[in-house]
Amino acid sequence: MIAAALDELGHALPGRVSTDPEDLTRNSRDQGPVLEPALPSAVIRVRTVEDVQVVLRWASRHRVPVVSRGAGSGVSGGAHATQGCVVLSLELMNHILAINPDDETAVVEPGVINADLNTAVAEHGLMYAPDPASYRWSTIGGNVATNAGGLRCAKYGVTRDSVLALKVVLAGGTLISTGHSTFKGVAGYDLTALLTGSEGTLGVVVQVTVRLRYLPRDVRTLAAFFEDFPQAAAGVLAIGRARVQPSILELLDGRTLEALDGAHGSNLRGRGGSLLLVRTDGYGAAAEAAAIRSALLGLGAVVEEEGSAEAERLVDLRRHSRGDEVDDLFRVGEDVAIPKSRLVDYVEALESMAARYAVQLKVVAHAGDGNLHPTFWAERSEGPQAHARLDEALDESVRLALALGGTITGEHGVGQFKRRWLAWEQEPAVLELQARIKEVFDPLGILNPGKAIVA
Amino acid sequence: MIAAALDELGHALPGRVSTDPEDLTRNSRDQGPVLEPALPSAVIRVRTVEDVQVVLRWASRHRVPVVSRGAGSGVSGGAHATQGCVVLSLELMNHILAINPDDETAVVEPGVINADLNTAVAEHGLMYAPDPASYRWSTIGGNVATNAGGLRCAKYGVTRDSVLALKVVLAGGTLISTGHSTFKGVAGYDLTALLTGSEGTLGVVVQVTVRLRYLPRDVRTLAAFFEDFPQAAAGVLAIGRARVQPSILELLDGRTLEALDGAHGSNLRGRGGSLLLVRTDGYGAAAEAAAIRSALLGLGAVVEEEGSAEAERLVDLRRHSRGDEVDDLFRVGEDVAIPKSRLVDYVEALESMAARYAVQLKVVAHAGDGNLHPTFWAERSEGPQAHARLDEALDESVRLALALGGTITGEHGVGQFKRRWLAWEQEPAVLELQARIKEVFDPLGILNPGKAIVA
Repeated sequence: MIAAALDELGHALPGRVSTDPEDLTRNSRDQGPVLEPALPSAVIRVRTVEDVQVVLRWASRHRVPVVSRGAGSGVSGGAHATQGCVVLSLELMNHILAINPDDETAVVEPGVINADLNTAVAEHGLMYAPDPASYRWSTIGGNVATNAGGLRCAKYGVTRDSVLALKVVLAGGTLISTGHSTFKGVAGYDLTALLTGSEGTLGVVVQVTVRLRYLPRDVRTLAAFFEDFPQAAAGVLAIGRARVQPSILELLDGRTLEALDGAHGSNLRGRGGSLLLVRTDGYGAAAEAAAIRSALLGLGAVVEEEGSAEAERLVDLRRHSRGDEVDDLFRVGEDVAIPKSRLVDYVEALESMAARYAVQLKVVAHAGDGNLHPTFWAERSEGPQAHARLDEALDESVRLALALGGTITGEHGVGQFKRRWLAWEQEPAVLELQARIKEVFDPLGILNPGKAIVA
Repeated sequence: MIAAALDELGHALPGRVSTDPEDLTRNSRDQGPVLEPALPSAVIRVRTVEDVQVVLRWASRHRVPVVSRGAGSGVSGGAHATQGCVVLSLELMNHILAINPDDETAVVEPGVINADLNTAVAEHGLMYAPDPASYRWSTIGGNVATNAGGLRCAKYGVTRDSVLALKVVLAGGTLISTGHSTFKGVAGYDLTALLTGSEGTLGVVVQVTVRLRYLPRDVRTLAAFFEDFPQAAAGVLAIGRARVQPSILELLDGRTLEALDGAHGSNLRGRGGSLLLVRTDGYGAAAEAAAIRSALLGLGAVVEEEGSAEAERLVDLRRHSRGDEVDDLFRVGEDVAIPKSRLVDYVEALESMAARYAVQLKVVAHAGDGNLHPTFWAERSEGPQAHARLDEALDESVRLALALGGTITGEHGVGQFKRRWLAWEQEPAVLELQARIKEVFDPLGILNPGKAIVA
């Protein structure tokens, strides 16, 4: 039956529908852990809004699940194929449709790469602020689907804060526009914010109007070494107490420094047990960096000279650190966020928990936002029995974050992988509201089923 | 029937239910124009979350419409009483429940006055950024209901950007929590953003967790006089092109200067045909102000010395300029937003339109956001025939904004008054989605019916 339906779609969209086995495999998953491996029936590479409408009308008619996909850079399985689905690839809808330098906005197709947009607007003195670690290869559409964060959101906010308007194809094929081309606008309910972060479960985003920010005139970067993690976390609070807003504030623990030393031949761990990377930007960058340096020196940190090539290199390393460190059975990573004041409590609890489960632990954090990425791993030689311990450690790391007033996901999204935790954070009435909103947008349940919410 | 029902409620909530005629009148409207005068059956002054639950269970049982109300400072009629309703006054739920200086958050009841929150957090070096002109008397709950803007949102964003979490009583009386206590969080759909700006039509907000910002270390204020409005609008673009982000950027036209002179005995109009008020803040404030000054001098502006008492006074005047200028039959105001680059086009079109309709026009704008507040008026001596002209001028001012890619409301909300324009901006499928979301939250249609959306 699906073969006949695909044949029909192939005639409607000649050259766009692939059933090549390698293609199916390559598009069957994102970077997240795979719980239930599945292959799509086809990969459909749309080029126009009308193509997307044709696909969704077809999918509604035949009740075929549709998994929308940008670059597949997600880490929560939001773009994993599910049983009987087709993958709707938006990677060829990659045109920047307009850059409006005076309005400080741009209009893009969903397949535009984050870094390409930044390159294009830089000549106008502008930037697109959200910079997930995948910014060199992830798409704006994917960033919108997950409401992606990044490093600079400490100062500039997350994806939602930069999205002004969307064009979206609804499940039945209807094209709608939400939001406004202006910075402000409060006409009706905020459907743009509702759709941002909805992981392709409410509609397919086919156009995005973004707000741009000013490329900073000046940038200062500090690297501050501390004796241990609690000292570095105290440094995060000290910067906050000095009421200075960095654009980037990253915290790396000792095991992360060891890993970097191993990979790059550096000697970071020898210089401290924890590292804070701090960047300030804008007209006040130098004064802000000086205030931060003074606050950190007061805590006994060793603060490198400003603008040292190493500090810059470390921030850049950190800005795209994840792509080559994919989770698997022996290595699992998390993305919780907690109130900033609980950083030390949380990492202490993590450490004793990791010892209890006999798993290795390292932690990096977008500390300015209280967003932590702990990673747990075990040696491959330990074999299958290590998997259960890693899974339990992961579960407990999430419970610990919730107990401190945190959330199960700061910026990666729920996708497929984190649905088991969603009911730990959200009460039944809230889960139910979301399921019913999903029904409003997608009564047949064909849009990325089994993702983002608990239906 | 309503009398018996109110009797029942009075027993459940002794001392909270008022049917005093003066009380009913005083709570029958906000500052917006009244299209269909109506009195509530009662005013219910709740003190606790449980009180709100009792009221909504009662209202569901008896199918009584509930209009939630903070200070009644809204200007779109979102808090106007409607036929057969009760007013749920949240003004006594005015406690600041927590200030977390290290987390840079606060938790408040909805009736807390915006300015009171700012006073309370200032001693910690923090501020609550959104500052609608009503900030001295409007409530945080009301600000959330309308997703209020203000002057500082040019740099710090609107209310939605400062709201992290809500506690909300649903129509049936169920209490839910949305969002997270952390700066970042992407678990499930963004119900917090959906509820922010929904004007009491989806639930009653009973607790708000807000993100605080750093009180700026330094503030610089400039007043720049231009020959005319187009020159001042060019100044707005010049500041943007210099890629300097002011915290406040207000544009006042010549008629507004005349009105200020009339009210305060100043001589602003004599010094120019249009005025830009610019404030920078933070560590870079002085350098930013210097860059702005230089950009504006290049355009021939007369720029006052920085930090002059007059510039400060003018900004303060502007920050709470509206309360004493309420619209009525002879004076109507608007709140459109347009892309910044169209400021001159828009005001030129407004001026010729005002001449055509023989109405007076003055314009102030949160120019950094492209958010304009044109006001049209006629002399009372012109009598009733002036009303129709004013109404037509208002309608056309909105059409003109939409034609330039704008929105019907930048920050005031749709309320009751602007529903007639909503379908001009939003297509039927979008209106329908909103009506269906409303049904999910409020199946009986008792929450502020006839507001915010077109059902």
